[in-house]
Amino acid sequence: MWQLYQFPLCPFSRKVRLHLAEKGVAFELWRENPWEQRDEFVDKNPAARTPVIGNAERGITLVDSRAICEYFEETVDKNPLINGTAPMRAEIRRLVALFDENFFGDVTGPLLHERMKKRLVYRQSPDSRVLREAMKLAHEHLYYIDYLVDTRPWLAGATMSLADLAAAAQISVADYLGGLDWTGHEQAKSWYSVFKSRPSFRPLLAERMEVIQPPSHYGDVNW
Amino acid sequence: MWQLYQFPLCPFSRKVRLHLAEKGVAFELWRENPWEQRDEFVDKNPAARTPVIGNAERGITLVDSRAICEYFEETVDKNPLINGTAPMRAEIRRLVALFDENFFGDVTGPLLHERMKKRLVYRQSPDSRVLREAMKLAHEHLYYIDYLVDTRPWLAGATMSLADLAAAAQISVADYLGGLDWTGHEQAKSWYSVFKSRPSFRPLLAERMEVIQPPSHYGDVNW
Repeated sequence: MWQLYQFPLCPFSRKVRLHLAEKGVAFELWRENPWEQRDEFVDKNPAARTPVIGNAERGITLVDSRAICEYFEETVDKNPLINGTAPMRAEIRRLVALFDENFFGDVTGPLLHERMKKRLVYRQSPDSRVLREAMKLAHEHLYYIDYLVDTRPWLAGATMSLADLAAAAQISVADYLGGLDWTGHEQAKSWYSVFKSRPSFRPLLAERMEVIQPPSHYGDVNW
Repeated sequence: MWQLYQFPLCPFSRKVRLHLAEKGVAFELWRENPWEQRDEFVDKNPAARTPVIGNAERGITLVDSRAICEYFEETVDKNPLINGTAPMRAEIRRLVALFDENFFGDVTGPLLHERMKKRLVYRQSPDSRVLREAMKLAHEHLYYIDYLVDTRPWLAGATMSLADLAAAAQISVADYLGGLDWTGHEQAKSWYSVFKSRPSFRPLLAERMEVIQPPSHYGDVNW
């Protein structure tokens, strides 16, 4: 059995959880707060980041969400999510990077710092200037998703791919932290609503991070 | 012919240049300053980052350095650089992420901001506190490379891989910007010296970014 080291609001762990669920790979969740820099965890990953996934019976430890997803794409045939011709696969990976790096850097990362880490770790109040900037940039990212959804059935093309999972993972954390104003983003909202109904997504929506509560629409699949 | 949009001190473009050279793919360099947000460039990559690589005859544009490298791994057989069993490939990708994200975030990114962007774009002096912190973290990364080189012939295992290219790309930019103190890092230094002598690396070492000069040892392959 695979053991996934993660915490509920880690967007990269969420991407891996969605990926494993869509591919039918069974796994257990192990709670890890990477900011505590637990020795056993840093031994597994010197970068001290979640997610890490291990399989003791096979003697395998995998680190980095993209490396993990590529591994399961290579080893599990069911439901390929980096699929198609080489240029199509490059387009999927471009969008995964866009959400992992730019959406996270602009939106999810600042929201996690201000609304989760400052509360749980530093016992400080969030900086409203940083929150406003993150929410402003979130609009620009949602406009780009509107544009993609207007031109393609799924974000990277004709079929669901890792790009959709990466986007939904970031968006779900930003939404949990009250950082998204969906007004005027009907296309992005309709794409995300479909996604929220998938069996792979339901466990994420039901989960809560201690102390921090999401807005009422967060877990509502009919919203 | 492939056209690579890049600027001389972009570590992600350097990784792609090394990768293409090692795989024997011909390409032209096109100078792009991503901070200028040139319209034609943002049309190619909404994230407005280098590298971007295009091939007009084939009608292909590829974005994101990891997506680009995966594309050429999939389409060019010569000299595979993400090679081996699935766990070995995951180890290569883990290290690529470590250098692209952690080394860049801790060292190359702050150095580029303080010593290149502040000079060329903002006309400001570098913040010596930020530089000191980047150089301190650089030591920790060099210690990790010392450890890897002590236990393996190349960073990810028995053969040269994309992990070596990603590390050398980040290190070469940090070294150009005077951010590395090699004292006490004999293993990392010997690995890097071998790398500097490779034909793929020589064009990078000969290149200069306007206004900013590297330290005297930077381009010296016998140092």
